[in-house]
Amino acid sequence: MSTNDDDLQKEIIEVCLRRGIVFPTAEIYGGAAGFFEYGPIGELVRQHLINLWREHFIASEENIYEISGSLILPEKVFEASGHLSTFNDPLIQCDKCKSMFRADHLLEEKDASINFDALSIQELEEMVKKYEVTCPSCGGSLGSPREFNLMFETQIGPVSGNRGFLRPETAQNIFINFKRIAHSMRAQLPFGVAQIGKAFRNEISPRNFLVRLREFEQMEIEMFVDPDELNNHPRWDEVADYEISILTREAQKTGGTPITVTVQEALDKGLIPNQYFGYYLALETEFLLSLGVDKDSFWFRHLLESETAHYSKGNYDLEIKFPFGIVECIGNAYRTDYDLMKHAEKSNTKMHIALPDGKKVIPHVIEPSFGVTRLFYVLLLASYQKGDREWTWFKFPYSVAPYEAVVAPLMKKDGLKEAAYDFFWELKDEGIDVIYDESGQIGKRYARSDEIGVPFVLTIDYQTLEDETVTIRDRDTTKQYRIPMAETAEVIRELIFNVITFQDLEKEYAELNGKESKKGKKTEQQKSASNKKRKQKKQKGN
Amino acid sequence: MSTNDDDLQKEIIEVCLRRGIVFPTAEIYGGAAGFFEYGPIGELVRQHLINLWREHFIASEENIYEISGSLILPEKVFEASGHLSTFNDPLIQCDKCKSMFRADHLLEEKDASINFDALSIQELEEMVKKYEVTCPSCGGSLGSPREFNLMFETQIGPVSGNRGFLRPETAQNIFINFKRIAHSMRAQLPFGVAQIGKAFRNEISPRNFLVRLREFEQMEIEMFVDPDELNNHPRWDEVADYEISILTREAQKTGGTPITVTVQEALDKGLIPNQYFGYYLALETEFLLSLGVDKDSFWFRHLLESETAHYSKGNYDLEIKFPFGIVECIGNAYRTDYDLMKHAEKSNTKMHIALPDGKKVIPHVIEPSFGVTRLFYVLLLASYQKGDREWTWFKFPYSVAPYEAVVAPLMKKDGLKEAAYDFFWELKDEGIDVIYDESGQIGKRYARSDEIGVPFVLTIDYQTLEDETVTIRDRDTTKQYRIPMAETAEVIRELIFNVITFQDLEKEYAELNGKESKKGKKTEQQKSASNKKRKQKKQKGN
Repeated sequence: MSTNDDDLQKEIIEVCLRRGIVFPTAEIYGGAAGFFEYGPIGELVRQHLINLWREHFIASEENIYEISGSLILPEKVFEASGHLSTFNDPLIQCDKCKSMFRADHLLEEKDASINFDALSIQELEEMVKKYEVTCPSCGGSLGSPREFNLMFETQIGPVSGNRGFLRPETAQNIFINFKRIAHSMRAQLPFGVAQIGKAFRNEISPRNFLVRLREFEQMEIEMFVDPDELNNHPRWDEVADYEISILTREAQKTGGTPITVTVQEALDKGLIPNQYFGYYLALETEFLLSLGVDKDSFWFRHLLESETAHYSKGNYDLEIKFPFGIVECIGNAYRTDYDLMKHAEKSNTKMHIALPDGKKVIPHVIEPSFGVTRLFYVLLLASYQKGDREWTWFKFPYSVAPYEAVVAPLMKKDGLKEAAYDFFWELKDEGIDVIYDESGQIGKRYARSDEIGVPFVLTIDYQTLEDETVTIRDRDTTKQYRIPMAETAEVIRELIFNVITFQDLEKEYAELNGKESKKGKKTEQQKSASNKKRKQKKQKGN
Repeated sequence: MSTNDDDLQKEIIEVCLRRGIVFPTAEIYGGAAGFFEYGPIGELVRQHLINLWREHFIASEENIYEISGSLILPEKVFEASGHLSTFNDPLIQCDKCKSMFRADHLLEEKDASINFDALSIQELEEMVKKYEVTCPSCGGSLGSPREFNLMFETQIGPVSGNRGFLRPETAQNIFINFKRIAHSMRAQLPFGVAQIGKAFRNEISPRNFLVRLREFEQMEIEMFVDPDELNNHPRWDEVADYEISILTREAQKTGGTPITVTVQEALDKGLIPNQYFGYYLALETEFLLSLGVDKDSFWFRHLLESETAHYSKGNYDLEIKFPFGIVECIGNAYRTDYDLMKHAEKSNTKMHIALPDGKKVIPHVIEPSFGVTRLFYVLLLASYQKGDREWTWFKFPYSVAPYEAVVAPLMKKDGLKEAAYDFFWELKDEGIDVIYDESGQIGKRYARSDEIGVPFVLTIDYQTLEDETVTIRDRDTTKQYRIPMAETAEVIRELIFNVITFQDLEKEYAELNGKESKKGKKTEQQKSASNKKRKQKKQKGN
């Protein structure tokens, strides 16, 4: 990690704190490691990111149901799921300064070529001796590693001994509610159940800003499929030719690079377990590209045998390369019927679904699992821009920007302030997501708007008072054009939904921008596209 | 509580379980008292309810920022807030069967005229003796009451002794982030900070279905105001004449009923502490009415002196009367500068805001606090309908219904199924929130649609194949009219946004419904209303 690379994270953290994007939790009390809060700007971006995900993965399907379950679950759930006995990390403590570390992480720093993650506690103890690992804080000698369960424990009710745990993944609510959901929705296979919500892992050493947190947010889908139909996805044709990048196990062993294949090829070569699995790798690739992540910077890494649970028949992590390292932000797992079987057994509940031919099956599960908090960080990293301005900016896709536009009077005097404020409310009433900013020089306001990634600034100036036009400034190019106030809401909608580009405004309003007018020459095709986009508007949500 | 009244709750619980609205958490493991999950239908209604709240309380203002903070907070936060020492309920245990109860609740069952809530542990012990209270489960004698802290405790990280607590209210994140928010947003007084999220209270005896839960959801606004400007709300004129119902302290003592006054009168009579407080009582009344709650069924109860924290200068709970009892679902508190002062002191952080004249003030706080889970239950209760149908239905306001319409083929044969399925996808692409249902007799599908409160059913029948029209059925009247397929999306939008009524369809499509056509006679005024509503569509969200 070079100094420069380190700077990227530092710079982003600085902007996050200064501009209300994310804050450390309980900062005034010295903070709490592994916890963060979304400030006003970050919270808007988070909501837009979640809405975009819902559109892409839920609203565009007909058979995925979203639920929202409890964060505290009783002990029995995690006895059955196996989390109580196996959801551990190897904890090692310095005999001298008492600092605690993850034994596998310390070993990885000694030798990156070995996957220590997969070793038993006994094997780790031997390795710590072999590599002569000492305390990274004080150089003292380390004790023996021991298993540390990552679930946060609490007590439910006043009777002691009634243990509850904060869920370490949203998935378990879906499995334990499976029967109720299937029955109440009269669901037939295949169908999916999605959940967006908090999850908790009591990490030994939280690190990397928003990457390894103790409290975070997930968006998960559990897709339930008849095991005989895993290669019969109804929409396979729509994705079969879609190209994805895969880092094979072979490549990982030989230091190779990711290969680009169509999902059909990946299936034919036996790289992925089935069509349902491939369908999600395609959708995820499309989603990452829509967030502005460079297509050459990410791939699906096939987890090694040693990293894969015994019941799993396929695990691929979406990894994104940044200057300072790799961020993993989506996990894909073919969980088979493992979870439903375990809960069926422990709770003595039938978890099968009747097929139309009367046959009963325990469905198999394909799980795409998204880390919201990590995706949010990826979005910040991928959007962060520096150039010939004196400030940085986030080139957020319009759909996730905190606001659509800022309304700013050039000056506060001569009625400009009042005109701008009225215009702000007009746009708000028209459903445009605007904020009003009158403080400081106009240049400062451009800077502030760019810094939080707002696509457009609308400035009310002296000409506005004469001819009811305003200037619209583009975040990405800093170009400005004049447009009529009365058409501003429409223009912003067309820009946001990519019906027109910012550059089109020069021609469209040529008479206001020193060129011959092309106004009114919008083709029928453009109009039709505009209407279609308008209809989709509703799905954008707030 | 009569048998009939009890039935209402039972019936609603039965529908909730059967139709995917809410489920008990970990039901297959015998459940966990005080925890519920939103099933697929309930989750949609919950999301719509939250969107509606955001529109009403946040999007319509210019200076309210939403944040989203950690659920686990370190001990120091609650030392400062006072929750660690005072957020207790009086726990009493049966010596014989070991059951646990809230001492004040047992006493209230003996004598409803006394407010036992306000008594000390010593006073409660005397009262338990005086009223000769015994165990309601086994009749055994009760031990001495003791304080039980309602916060769920956990341990942060592997080092023991580092206590964290699940937040018992969302408000504390707002106070501890106050300085960061104010600075990063360059916020000037007055401004508000809102938060929607989970909160946790380890109730001794959870009860009343969704009313007294251990894990629930809140929507809170902390409005920060210069203490000298509390009676100078910029939008006071918009609410001053709005009528609200108040149950005064006097009325509570004398067994009186709520009085109806304008917020201006409430202020003039000294019933409410200031304009900001009154502004929210008006907005909340308007919000409840928009949810379909009967205006004569709710009021703001002025909490008695004994129920009010020493620092509070005004507390009003919104209470709604149902046949089985009263549900309190919004709390309003004038928290003064208490919380900011406490955190300023304990964390040694400055919490003041500079006014334009240079003066620095610690703002005062007005807090409207909504229980999402309780509001959700209120919505179910207020919408529940029985009539001459063989099934029940929820008369949800369109804006919170789980879907806008169901698409159903009359039969599965003769191409009706295919036509209906294509039509379903067309409407979905047009942004209409539809589901597809082909299973069972059409009458059953009407029943299923009504039961979960979907406003409209669109049926594809043999006539559809001839003339491309469908029938649209109204949930509330069961009336049906024929409309053209091509205009269906538009018709649904106009119905949902109350631009037209269902009855208008009879005239509008008279030639399809056996009457002379009035089509094309939409007035300019209607068209304009239609456009305006369309623009607001975006804010409806998903």
